[in-house]
Amino acid sequence: MANAVYPGTFDPVHKGHVDVAKRAAKLFDHLVIGVYDSPPKSLMFTTEERVDMFAESLKGTPNVEVLPFSGLAVDFAREVGAWFILRGLRAGFDFEVEFEMAHMWRSLAPDVDVVCVMSALEHQFMHSSRIKEVARLGGNVEGLVPPGVAGLLQQKLSN
Amino acid sequence: MANAVYPGTFDPVHKGHVDVAKRAAKLFDHLVIGVYDSPPKSLMFTTEERVDMFAESLKGTPNVEVLPFSGLAVDFAREVGAWFILRGLRAGFDFEVEFEMAHMWRSLAPDVDVVCVMSALEHQFMHSSRIKEVARLGGNVEGLVPPGVAGLLQQKLSN
Amino acid sequence: MANAVYPGTFDPVHKGHVDVAKRAAKLFDHLVIGVYDSPPKSLMFTTEERVDMFAESLKGTPNVEVLPFSGLAVDFAREVGAWFILRGLRAGFDFEVEFEMAHMWRSLAPDVDVVCVMSALEHQFMHSSRIKEVARLGGNVEGLVPPGVAGLLQQKLSN
Amino acid sequence: MANAVYPGTFDPVHKGHVDVAKRAAKLFDHLVIGVYDSPPKSLMFTTEERVDMFAESLKGTPNVEVLPFSGLAVDFAREVGAWFILRGLRAGFDFEVEFEMAHMWRSLAPDVDVVCVMSALEHQFMHSSRIKEVARLGGNVEGLVPPGVAGLLQQKLSN
Amino acid sequence: MANAVYPGTFDPVHKGHVDVAKRAAKLFDHLVIGVYDSPPKSLMFTTEERVDMFAESLKGTPNVEVLPFSGLAVDFAREVGAWFILRGLRAGFDFEVEFEMAHMWRSLAPDVDVVCVMSALEHQFMHSSRIKEVARLGGNVEGLVPPGVAGLLQQKLSN
Amino acid sequence: MANAVYPGTFDPVHKGHVDVAKRAAKLFDHLVIGVYDSPPKSLMFTTEERVDMFAESLKGTPNVEVLPFSGLAVDFAREVGAWFILRGLRAGFDFEVEFEMAHMWRSLAPDVDVVCVMSALEHQFMHSSRIKEVARLGGNVEGLVPPGVAGLLQQKLSN
Repeated sequence: MANAVYPGTFDPVHKGHVDVAKRAAKLFDHLVIGVYDSPPKSLMFTTEERVDMFAESLKGTPNVEVLPFSGLAVDFAREVGAWFILRGLRAGFDFEVEFEMAHMWRSLAPDVDVVCVMSALEHQFMHSSRIKEVARLGGNVEGLVPPGVAGLLQQKLSN
Repeated sequence: MANAVYPGTFDPVHKGHVDVAKRAAKLFDHLVIGVYDSPPKSLMFTTEERVDMFAESLKGTPNVEVLPFSGLAVDFAREVGAWFILRGLRAGFDFEVEFEMAHMWRSLAPDVDVVCVMSALEHQFMHSSRIKEVARLGGNVEGLVPPGVAGLLQQKLSN
Repeated sequence: MANAVYPGTFDPVHKGHVDVAKRAAKLFDHLVIGVYDSPPKSLMFTTEERVDMFAESLKGTPNVEVLPFSGLAVDFAREVGAWFILRGLRAGFDFEVEFEMAHMWRSLAPDVDVVCVMSALEHQFMHSSRIKEVARLGGNVEGLVPPGVAGLLQQKLSN
Repeated sequence: MANAVYPGTFDPVHKGHVDVAKRAAKLFDHLVIGVYDSPPKSLMFTTEERVDMFAESLKGTPNVEVLPFSGLAVDFAREVGAWFILRGLRAGFDFEVEFEMAHMWRSLAPDVDVVCVMSALEHQFMHSSRIKEVARLGGNVEGLVPPGVAGLLQQKLSN
Repeated sequence: MANAVYPGTFDPVHKGHVDVAKRAAKLFDHLVIGVYDSPPKSLMFTTEERVDMFAESLKGTPNVEVLPFSGLAVDFAREVGAWFILRGLRAGFDFEVEFEMAHMWRSLAPDVDVVCVMSALEHQFMHSSRIKEVARLGGNVEGLVPPGVAGLLQQKLSN
Repeated sequence: MANAVYPGTFDPVHKGHVDVAKRAAKLFDHLVIGVYDSPPKSLMFTTEERVDMFAESLKGTPNVEVLPFSGLAVDFAREVGAWFILRGLRAGFDFEVEFEMAHMWRSLAPDVDVVCVMSALEHQFMHSSRIKEVARLGGNVEGLVPPGVAGLLQQKLSN
């Protein structure tokens, strides 16, 4: 039984995240999406909102679960009985950061391995931070995020 | 008639920016340099100062105009009747960032295209933020910026 | 009047090439596609076939012309009265090669400049050599090349 | 049941390949290593030798099988009932090549996905072609390949 | 007599830094490690603590000295009579940043050259900022830093 | 006493090579340039010609010597009593290749270390193979190679 965690901040979740999770759901018996429970001040959405948005976008994918976590991703993996950490790779320097994180994790927890899938071409340019910036500047981000998320972004920006 | 905008923060303009603008002035009928009108607190120069510095360095290049803008670069392009966004490319990870921005812009405005020129070799290491840091540490940046800009930098730092 | 050449081997032309040419046709008054007339032994198609395939795929784009050339791309540019060389950029190390070529050209001909457009996301993985390899291994490349080219590839491979 | 193929030329297999295969054996129910059956003239080892070397180094890993294949890797995957292709990623431009191959495969076979693991740090510099070159120049490659392979390399070189 | 400075923030020093310094001590007659004396608020350790930690880890390497500095690294090099600046290079985008810094320094001080050594494979993923983050999240960083530093990190975090 | 070898094919030597050698001559007590004595068929110049060309361009730099070598660079280093291998780094994927070579060398000879200098900006695009190609296509390469080398290239091409 191969289980995995897919850790991230997901502030907010975008279509690239959802695609990675759905494709990985075919690879693992059980996939736990770990929403990093960081202090809310630097983020737009609360941990609960981020968990709910991702869970909503994965309805109908039965072997995936969305949970908050704090601490190291490798410790979270062990807690939920997963021996793999899942990452999506975009072209460009994304790989370098992921490469370094993967080796840091392996040095901390040699029993947990990192598994990657390639982001789909149409999601190559999607970053949560850029999506928030575009929304702030008045751009329409409905094509970049799951249904409902664009509206929640709009609400936060008009507060 | 091919018109373009060259958007940026230009805090301050450096010789690499001026070179890109002058070379692109031969390519486009009309080139509008868009100085991003962001809140001044995180920048060294006001929007007006940044517009003036760039305009001063382009005297004698008749088909170039320098204007402030806010909002998305693609919206600014449409406002001024330009169907191209101009970018200068340095070696290294510059390309990755520009690649992602270009595809974000294309997803927001498929009618606006991104055109790039390669930065001259002698400008490869020039970034506005690094120039400010060097000036702050007492380095002489006169070789890196258009005439007059080094003096203005000095004034800001001695305030 | 801004004219450009778009030099390449185009053995064979693929959809990424056609997209770059069509988008650049909006940027330049006149665009000359230069098909590199190299000795045919290492290539699959003759120079004439490569010129014809690209010309066929650009019917209806009036300001583009396809010509064979030999020698340096910068010399070809000067011959046809163009002061720009056009290149398409894919993500990844494509940029590095193009960056070096651009600076080699600028050192040989400072009066000719290099202008780049970003390849569309759906063309990121298209290389003529890889397309030939896939066809050789029995893969269906109809989605990767202009209409008619897949058939010509098949003919060459069955010879 | 998640099955995968790990395609490659493996001329010869090195420790990085074996490590990737062993780690992936924990991820997949069944892993088929596909040794590309290319014409032997440009390679050092025959297809049979390459299959045997890899199989020998995986004794004791029950859910892995080594088979020759020809044609496209995605077709081989379908033949053996695998919906995943496995790749190992080294730092550097390795990623770019793998990224492009992954998207070429996805365009040819959207039902087959690519899954990557990061090469261990101590295998970052291992390429079969470089190992052959070092052996040719008289270097000791015993630390780079599974037991027995260095001897076979020596035999080939002394023929 | 070739002398060099090895400038950095070293907040805190890690094993990769120590390895680079020890290897470079064989290359230079005298090596001065320059600990950047920046305002302490954004750092975890004071300048004095950072100097002491690095000096402690280099006991027994006689031709190395650890000093604080402020201002530009090239000015510090000249002050201590060094004509070389030493840098360690990791895989990935590290190189790009170092490349740009090197050329900025050369433009400011053509008489000072930059010399690099490659980080050992086992130190590829070590960054001071990531080590602090891992420690903050409860990870054990004893394998990543010189003896004593993990304890000092723990003290700072429990304050 | 720090000695080094600077290994390469140098077919032919270009200005970037000469600059790297001259700058490194200030760093090392003795620098041996190792011209790789590979079979002449794939190269333009004989080993003797390549040694002579590089030696000619370094007249007046007393602590540099040019010698042919065969076998591994690390073995050549040991033969001439050098504990360092010198490499010049250009921007882009040059670094990746050098990084992998450096770690291969360190695995073969842990007592020999690799030291790099950054290529000057004006030499970023210089590769011997590209220079030969440009010369073959009729381009003027006098600005890219030391005095005399352009003429020798011309002679070879007219044979």
